[in-house]
Amino acid sequence: MTEEKPGSLRPGGRTARVREAVLRVAGDLLAEHGFARLDLAEVATRAGVGKTTVYRRWRTPAGLVADLLAEMAETSLPHADTGSLHGDLRANARLVATTLTDPRQGPLFKSLVAAATCDPEAAAALRHFYDIRLAEWSPCIDRAIARGELPPDTDSRAVLSAVSAPLYYRLLISGDALDARAADTAAEAALLTARAGLFPR
Amino acid sequence: MTEEKPGSLRPGGRTARVREAVLRVAGDLLAEHGFARLDLAEVATRAGVGKTTVYRRWRTPAGLVADLLAEMAETSLPHADTGSLHGDLRANARLVATTLTDPRQGPLFKSLVAAATCDPEAAAALRHFYDIRLAEWSPCIDRAIARGELPPDTDSRAVLSAVSAPLYYRLLISGDALDARAADTAAEAALLTARAGLFPR
Repeated sequence: MTEEKPGSLRPGGRTARVREAVLRVAGDLLAEHGFARLDLAEVATRAGVGKTTVYRRWRTPAGLVADLLAEMAETSLPHADTGSLHGDLRANARLVATTLTDPRQGPLFKSLVAAATCDPEAAAALRHFYDIRLAEWSPCIDRAIARGELPPDTDSRAVLSAVSAPLYYRLLISGDALDARAADTAAEAALLTARAGLFPR
Repeated sequence: MTEEKPGSLRPGGRTARVREAVLRVAGDLLAEHGFARLDLAEVATRAGVGKTTVYRRWRTPAGLVADLLAEMAETSLPHADTGSLHGDLRANARLVATTLTDPRQGPLFKSLVAAATCDPEAAAALRHFYDIRLAEWSPCIDRAIARGELPPDTDSRAVLSAVSAPLYYRLLISGDALDARAADTAAEAALLTARAGLFPR
């Protein structure tokens, strides 16, 4: 998008509207059919945008995935502040479980992970998205350290990864239920492990 | 493979040799190029097997993935018996980390997970493979319960999933290092959580 004038990227401008329409369709198609069948021409048709525009701006299916992940990073929800680390981690776990069991978001995240397994550009975008998400929730860990709930050298990324990991394992590997009980156990296990000092920086 | 006579499936027979050659090539191609580019004709050529045979026996790329996972389940390594739960879980975690960082096995597992995200037959085969793996290591948990190291109602599948989950999260999501430290932390966290009674059946 380096060829666009800065002014054309303002929210509500034509460029922003085209991007929003294209990325919404790309997300729909990824959720429905997976990365292997993502086709730029089909995205253009369904978004009501010229094929030339789509090919020029996004180039490849991986380019679309990368920009979709960039948009998801820009618009992701802020972290919780429940007053306790247990509450914050449980809120985080339940948000992850709710997202991964959502009829659109669940298949979409599977397809984004699949794209990252076979394309370096998609992989870099996926890493960046999770870097942003993990950093966004790190104040929960900082506050817990300040309240004396955790060892001072606790690594926030490790704690938050520990909350998410069992839930992604259920989605991608074991197929076990992604319910509130699974979310709460993930949060409690991460809390217990962090308190024991197993996540030093 | 229901059309094959039982006798033709004996180890060392021609059918077994064809299967071994085809699945080795399928694994190589999955590790090199991913599921989206797996092609039965290319598998046949590289395995030195007739295309008709490959199409008749495996039908689709997902059929190949399913049979490869079935073979992996048949030949997977037995569980450790180090004398302590900590030792057994650490051995399990290090085996998983070593597998996922192996230059062939790492990309292969990524491709198998990717296949499962977009194909129900591959997904069922992946679930079955992990069911077998998790069941194969469950005696470690049974012995720990018998030794009084864990609450009697501990769910072995939950403990072993907890060991693997942070390692698969690093492989597929965060990109963080899959080293011996990550493996040992995964084992210790699962141990701590299981001892606290957070994994009841």
